[in-house]
Amino acid sequence: MDKQMNEKTTAGLEHLRDLIDGVDQQLLHLLRKRLDLVAQVGAVKHAAGVPIYAPQREASMLAKRRDEAQKMNVSPQLIEDILRRLMRESYLNEKDVGFKQIKQDLGHVVVVGGQGKLGQLFSQMLVLSGYEVKSIDKNDWQDAAAIFDGAGLVIVTVPINVTCEVIRDKLTQLPENCILADLTSIKEAPLTAMLAAHKGPVVGLHPMFGPDVGSLAKQVVVVCHGRHQEAYQWLLQQIEIWGARIVEAEAERHDKAMQLVQAMRHFSTFVYGVNLCKEEADIGNLLQFSSPIYRLELAMVGRLFAQDPELYADIIFAQPGSQHAISDYLDNYRDALTMLQTGNRQAFVEQFQRVAKWFGDFAPQFQHESRAMLQSVNDMKAG
Amino acid sequence: MDKQMNEKTTAGLEHLRDLIDGVDQQLLHLLRKRLDLVAQVGAVKHAAGVPIYAPQREASMLAKRRDEAQKMNVSPQLIEDILRRLMRESYLNEKDVGFKQIKQDLGHVVVVGGQGKLGQLFSQMLVLSGYEVKSIDKNDWQDAAAIFDGAGLVIVTVPINVTCEVIRDKLTQLPENCILADLTSIKEAPLTAMLAAHKGPVVGLHPMFGPDVGSLAKQVVVVCHGRHQEAYQWLLQQIEIWGARIVEAEAERHDKAMQLVQAMRHFSTFVYGVNLCKEEADIGNLLQFSSPIYRLELAMVGRLFAQDPELYADIIFAQPGSQHAISDYLDNYRDALTMLQTGNRQAFVEQFQRVAKWFGDFAPQFQHESRAMLQSVNDMKAG
Repeated sequence: MDKQMNEKTTAGLEHLRDLIDGVDQQLLHLLRKRLDLVAQVGAVKHAAGVPIYAPQREASMLAKRRDEAQKMNVSPQLIEDILRRLMRESYLNEKDVGFKQIKQDLGHVVVVGGQGKLGQLFSQMLVLSGYEVKSIDKNDWQDAAAIFDGAGLVIVTVPINVTCEVIRDKLTQLPENCILADLTSIKEAPLTAMLAAHKGPVVGLHPMFGPDVGSLAKQVVVVCHGRHQEAYQWLLQQIEIWGARIVEAEAERHDKAMQLVQAMRHFSTFVYGVNLCKEEADIGNLLQFSSPIYRLELAMVGRLFAQDPELYADIIFAQPGSQHAISDYLDNYRDALTMLQTGNRQAFVEQFQRVAKWFGDFAPQFQHESRAMLQSVNDMKAG
Repeated sequence: MDKQMNEKTTAGLEHLRDLIDGVDQQLLHLLRKRLDLVAQVGAVKHAAGVPIYAPQREASMLAKRRDEAQKMNVSPQLIEDILRRLMRESYLNEKDVGFKQIKQDLGHVVVVGGQGKLGQLFSQMLVLSGYEVKSIDKNDWQDAAAIFDGAGLVIVTVPINVTCEVIRDKLTQLPENCILADLTSIKEAPLTAMLAAHKGPVVGLHPMFGPDVGSLAKQVVVVCHGRHQEAYQWLLQQIEIWGARIVEAEAERHDKAMQLVQAMRHFSTFVYGVNLCKEEADIGNLLQFSSPIYRLELAMVGRLFAQDPELYADIIFAQPGSQHAISDYLDNYRDALTMLQTGNRQAFVEQFQRVAKWFGDFAPQFQHESRAMLQSVNDMKAG
């Protein structure tokens, strides 16, 4: 590249970059305007008590935009991705407006374990919806009678290994019409304990998200019905107002799924971290060699170890059934290793095909989904 | 909600949605305009032979935009995420312009295994950069002499279990100055084979991405030097022009990392799929109960089984060293299970803390990264 070319190139690039700067300024203004308009939609919905997340409306809006994009030779996926990101921002901002209060004459709410992260999140959402919230933690039991007096809803969110004990020992004297609910990640045992301790309405909830979500929009809350559903129906409605989706489940079936979904996966991730540590792997080096897919996997492992060990110990040690799931995985791992050690490549391929067949249409669907995820991981890369 | 309220609400929402439609129209126009401007930047860069991905320029542009956003009360992360998504789109569009050809007097390129997906991707990139590309596959060896005659670069990208054999048996008669390169995911054995088969320049490459990436921007290509680096330096430059980052590595060290990164992880994922299949898990049911984190994990498992079993068999069975990594993981898993079976919660917590300490600053960094990933997974959810 000679010098003149270089100068000409530089000048050309500078000019174009100035134009891009201008476009980006306009873009920022448009984003601000759109966020404001959606906030106004939120305020209208808030007044009317309509849930902030409307899946069908969202889907039809996106379909329309994709069409318009196509006509303008803009990739439909681009506008969809940008709008989805914008919607996330709008959901986050909903918190500034507050939420419609569904049950006006409830009395106050008591969050048992309100200093925990999930307890704080639910307390915040309830306060934003106009409820009076009191908290009781392990050092406050001497004031229990006063705190529970007049409560319309008690939500238990204490560590999983003491949940049943707290319910059995401390929650037998609630007001008769008070709703007793819990947020534990297993459901059968706490539900049984709540039904035994309290004669009034009982419901088991399992929020399928961590306390670090910025908004409940599109998140799932599993509901296991206990007693007097009509008395707590408003609570499910209230949760939907916050944007979450309610999924009803039978407690035993939920717990069985959780053994696979939570205990076993967390356990495997834990062992993977232990393994890296024992091998004295050089994480910086591994990252250098990492494809987006591995970077994502490594991030999920690191994520676990950035959190509270007690939390994971609770989850993994809570259900005796988890040991079976974990030990089944070990057996399958051992069998597969034997296949590898004996060089039985053909057996590997055949088993692979069997599993692929079993996955059926989910396999290509997951491939499609994971591709989008990996692209977005790659987008995040800095130099 | 009474009927009048309902009508008023509906009318109010309709009006706001019309305004949002208008903003989105403007947004689409701006996106089109920005893509066009960036395409012009690309054309200037193309003419000057400057790489399309400029990490520093990108970082400083994003920092500027974040500042501007802050001043307008728009979340800096929002504009950054949107611009990163837009940049991805622009990188994709680079392909329409083609790329600067670094080496003008090369002669043609031969891709051995050019019908494979990765072979096709590299052929496409080379053609877009002005090179003449010929392909040779397993049924074309009778024409080998004619195809290799006058070749300036031969790229081997055949299944890993036949790579060394193909090099040893078929690539001993290349023109003396021809560069011999391979794209295998292990490096030591192919590099040794290439150095033995060919007296001219030799280089081992490992593209750290799947063939389904839309663009090479920000992707990593590992380079293990073989012989006569000065002769193939242009090739590394050419790959950088495509947007990828070159990471130099020593072959043995690379392969060791790959045992952990590839073989062991793929193997664990394989076993996890086998496990789900044997447990006759109901995937639809699991998805219902899935938090974003589990949905992501399940998607990565499904992704594997949507692909070619031979490919994974190749990767897992290729390196005898992988068996050690895989069997070490099994030992660690078994020890951890014993901890669980004996109810040794304290040992679990202590080991957790040890690993967390070992992760050091990577743990919170990964937590931060994974949070962004999980949010973007949640964004993708449809009703």
